[in-house]
Amino acid sequence: MLDERLETESAAIATLGLSQLRLMRDGRWPWLLLVPQRAGVSEVFELAPLDQTMLTFETNEVAKALKQVTGADKINIAAIGNQVRQLHVHVVARFEGDANWPGPIWGYGKAEPRSDEDVAALACKITEGMARS
Amino acid sequence: MLDERLETESAAIATLGLSQLRLMRDGRWPWLLLVPQRAGVSEVFELAPLDQTMLTFETNEVAKALKQVTGADKINIAAIGNQVRQLHVHVVARFEGDANWPGPIWGYGKAEPRSDEDVAALACKITEGMARS
Repeated sequence: MLDERLETESAAIATLGLSQLRLMRDGRWPWLLLVPQRAGVSEVFELAPLDQTMLTFETNEVAKALKQVTGADKINIAAIGNQVRQLHVHVVARFEGDANWPGPIWGYGKAEPRSDEDVAALACKITEGMARS
Repeated sequence: MLDERLETESAAIATLGLSQLRLMRDGRWPWLLLVPQRAGVSEVFELAPLDQTMLTFETNEVAKALKQVTGADKINIAAIGNQVRQLHVHVVARFEGDANWPGPIWGYGKAEPRSDEDVAALACKITEGMARS
């Protein structure tokens, strides 16, 4: 059962072994979420040990593809969850001079809508990048 | 070789299998860093696969102990590195109503010095917590 806020603010783009991969509908940064398909978990260390390893593997595969596809200067990875307690891992492509660089993206300003077409195009590039790597 | 800024802003409290565990000298939040002892790495996915798994294991052990020891409402984990490129993972204990809650800690306000005595006391609690868990 996906948290309502994650559902509204992001679009599903792939199903991995453990996680659903989602793309945030915010045009300021290429911003992905991994949502492990496990109920009632809010901290990474609450996952079973094998799931912890799986989540790391999936996170790093996604991060590597995101870097290759976007040419980002730095990938930011985080599990925060102060507002939405359902476990989700952020993977964000950052560029020098982007919105709030070099500060964090979380809690900064307001989302700038990313069009459905842009969501689809970026999702396509990312899933192709993951298939290649 | 430890980055100069990490060296100044944090104190070493333990040596784990892969990482040096450090405590930030900032009294606003109980805030730890894991610094994998590998040269020239700035992204988690640049680590060898076994090191990636090891870092996850160490991060989650530290996070679990930090939660137990502090009674935090939420643990925040992140690899950002927009300013300091040497790979380091933040593990932070957050409490409802703490500085900038529920926003992120990174880039927020100015550090409030944590005394050497406080650093030592918290370090002791955390390493004891890790030994118990």
